[in-house]
Amino acid sequence: MHGPAALQLTSEGRLKHLLTTEGLSKALITELLNTAESFLSSQGQPVKKAPLLRGKTVVNLFFENSTRTRTTFDIAAHRLSADVVTLDIRTSSASKGETLFDTLKNLEAMQADLFVVRHSAGGAPFFIANRVTPNIAVINAGDGTHAHPTQALLDLMTIRKHKGDPANLSVAIVGDVKHSRVARSLIHGLRGMKCPDIRAIGPGTLLPGDLDHLGVRAFHRIDHGLAGVDVIVLLRLQKERMTSALLPSEREFFNLYGMTEDRLKYSRPGAIVMHPGPINRGVEISNEVADGPQAVILDQVTNGIAVRMAVMAMTISTQQDLVS
Amino acid sequence: MHGPAALQLTSEGRLKHLLTTEGLSKALITELLNTAESFLSSQGQPVKKAPLLRGKTVVNLFFENSTRTRTTFDIAAHRLSADVVTLDIRTSSASKGETLFDTLKNLEAMQADLFVVRHSAGGAPFFIANRVTPNIAVINAGDGTHAHPTQALLDLMTIRKHKGDPANLSVAIVGDVKHSRVARSLIHGLRGMKCPDIRAIGPGTLLPGDLDHLGVRAFHRIDHGLAGVDVIVLLRLQKERMTSALLPSEREFFNLYGMTEDRLKYSRPGAIVMHPGPINRGVEISNEVADGPQAVILDQVTNGIAVRMAVMAMTISTQQDLVS
Amino acid sequence: MHGPAALQLTSEGRLKHLLTTEGLSKALITELLNTAESFLSSQGQPVKKAPLLRGKTVVNLFFENSTRTRTTFDIAAHRLSADVVTLDIRTSSASKGETLFDTLKNLEAMQADLFVVRHSAGGAPFFIANRVTPNIAVINAGDGTHAHPTQALLDLMTIRKHKGDPANLSVAIVGDVKHSRVARSLIHGLRGMKCPDIRAIGPGTLLPGDLDHLGVRAFHRIDHGLAGVDVIVLLRLQKERMTSALLPSEREFFNLYGMTEDRLKYSRPGAIVMHPGPINRGVEISNEVADGPQAVILDQVTNGIAVRMAVMAMTISTQQDLVS
Repeated sequence: MHGPAALQLTSEGRLKHLLTTEGLSKALITELLNTAESFLSSQGQPVKKAPLLRGKTVVNLFFENSTRTRTTFDIAAHRLSADVVTLDIRTSSASKGETLFDTLKNLEAMQADLFVVRHSAGGAPFFIANRVTPNIAVINAGDGTHAHPTQALLDLMTIRKHKGDPANLSVAIVGDVKHSRVARSLIHGLRGMKCPDIRAIGPGTLLPGDLDHLGVRAFHRIDHGLAGVDVIVLLRLQKERMTSALLPSEREFFNLYGMTEDRLKYSRPGAIVMHPGPINRGVEISNEVADGPQAVILDQVTNGIAVRMAVMAMTISTQQDLVS
Repeated sequence: MHGPAALQLTSEGRLKHLLTTEGLSKALITELLNTAESFLSSQGQPVKKAPLLRGKTVVNLFFENSTRTRTTFDIAAHRLSADVVTLDIRTSSASKGETLFDTLKNLEAMQADLFVVRHSAGGAPFFIANRVTPNIAVINAGDGTHAHPTQALLDLMTIRKHKGDPANLSVAIVGDVKHSRVARSLIHGLRGMKCPDIRAIGPGTLLPGDLDHLGVRAFHRIDHGLAGVDVIVLLRLQKERMTSALLPSEREFFNLYGMTEDRLKYSRPGAIVMHPGPINRGVEISNEVADGPQAVILDQVTNGIAVRMAVMAMTISTQQDLVS
Repeated sequence: MHGPAALQLTSEGRLKHLLTTEGLSKALITELLNTAESFLSSQGQPVKKAPLLRGKTVVNLFFENSTRTRTTFDIAAHRLSADVVTLDIRTSSASKGETLFDTLKNLEAMQADLFVVRHSAGGAPFFIANRVTPNIAVINAGDGTHAHPTQALLDLMTIRKHKGDPANLSVAIVGDVKHSRVARSLIHGLRGMKCPDIRAIGPGTLLPGDLDHLGVRAFHRIDHGLAGVDVIVLLRLQKERMTSALLPSEREFFNLYGMTEDRLKYSRPGAIVMHPGPINRGVEISNEVADGPQAVILDQVTNGIAVRMAVMAMTISTQQDLVS
């Protein structure tokens, strides 16, 4: 394997960082999802406390603010009994003129075991993974418009739980696919899982140009795009982008692409509706669908804890075996 | 039982949330205080570590900033071995347009066990308790001018420790009773404990109109109000309100109502002086009284840790029994 | 013993606070360094988890922002299994008009066991140590331009590990010695360890007037100052001071005092280069030296965790024995 994906795997193909879902094999994704499910109780809730990471130090390196994502990593780390240190990088040494490289070396010297990295620039977690010492794992918690691999894994976990093997499913992603790291990572994950039918639905301005290359079919009309799908993934409309004239108004978006009970009927009966959150009610989704029986949005959140526990446990385990 | 108080009790009368002291029975308050005392060592200090909430996740939902109160809840939760997640709600998804309802549902999906809620709007913790799933406890850490029940319980604990059963005591509350959630919750708690003589002392503009209804006697002159009381509860003067012409100047307030050694003599010998903190020296209280032998203000703080441990332990225990 | 140093010792000479390295005996510093080394594994890394402070509450009282130093104390406390509470004092009760004295008394009443104090005013940790109850330890994490004793101890630990007993070494400190609490505390620590040759190198405006009194020799030329030294300690150039015309420009400073491979040759072969961090590459130090074999800057960070664990463990142990 070549390219960025190779950086996250050992020569035996074990996961030592999680930077991207691009290039992950079906076997490895399946192992991740199975591990995540092992952290769920028989009631479908994450186990409350496991000693797997006792004595390990997880450092949150959030260059971009995200209370929600940080909270899920915090909870996952605490459930594995790790210590958690959060650096608000905007008020720390970075502002004193220290280079990112030196900040990293300092954290290493404090014996951090795992960096959770969120950055507004695509590629930052790769930069970091390239430079840390061999015994530190790096998890990408979202970098620019590039990737959000733990979100993609929790999406795959949710799909598999509710609809079975993605190799037998049709999946539609609706909204601003072009600027969405969630969409990009999910597409790579679905391809890794051999999903035969991946669709992107949205106006031309919001669909990326390389969909063909990604094995994704583009639809501008939602009735066409949803026809017969098993899984509908809604994306959050980034209101910041609307000022740039790339997006229609909220009302116009809802009129064209908002998920309503009527539109849900285009899909296969029993199709599930997903959303990475936080949802904009009345923009991407109607109240009826958000609170209806086909929405699995909150189950995604629950699975997100389990997936993050799995990624932390697996990468740190790989790093330990590498060192010892 | 009807009204808001009913929301916090099971049909058997056990505490599943703590939202208000209004309507709490003497039996239940006594159980809470006894539980709190069981968390104090023989030296009168809270026990340092109990495994009661191990694996439980306590979420601080502070919509209103309060370092002091949040810190006491943090310490109480840590002493019970819980994991604590603090959401600074002002910088989180709430600002991304997500509804409070959706934020709550997300936290539930992350398997929170207890919400500690502080909000500038009266009623917010009730709104939340009404909407959470059955296995989550909600503790009101102060809502608007409405209620601050853990403060009232620590006040009752302090009164009982120093002066015995409130059913045999006279208690005077001095200052801005009208706008004080501390006063309101304490009055309800004292009534629940069958305190026969509750007094409010302050200028007419700072005493609420419904004192009769609350079973409280109003006094405008502090010498009259303090005559023969066993317990003096001073309230913090909210400087914000002074601009609104509701309050006299700080100096004028101290001249009329400030607790001095001379005024203390109006009360019964050995009367205790309480204050929820932070104190304004020279406004509500003189240095001599604040640092004198009758002040139990710091013991209130100590008891506050034990009371919060008791409330967390009892509500989560109730929720667990409800689910299982 | 008299003066401020006496405050931190019991009558038997045991450490109950760490406020300054001034007046610490060689025996006590050696005990501290030995304890710190006992927290390092055979691989030179701090042990990951010790139960020494289980049930203890460490309160970070940072009146001055310092993400880096706070993080090292956090990690050290967590590794000893303590609970950690961080007060951002700038947004807490202090801003509500409460006196520092009352804030402290409240934290005591919450059963804090150890205060880690950082303050922009020299002497603040002494003020606090003077006023806390006997069972609370105070650690100075940096006060104004006065002292930074844990930094000095980690410097001494690093020197001893790499070069042996300071009693046999020549040590040069380079840069803004005048305004540096790091330099001041290190000089006192080196004197306590009977270091026979301590030098300060810098322009006249940046060297204090009392060097003679401190037993330190002043050098304005770096080639003279470095001649034959075993240890080179670089100080961070505070850019804030440059506007005040006390400092030359960054470029000028580097030209006169920046540590380059050429200048390193003035010192003894195998001399080590230290820096408290964060480093300014191209100002105090060249890239070649910073990343070269003689720099032990990152080992200082690692030792900093172990030293802070040792200081916390020793002071709390002393306090416990005092009370019991």
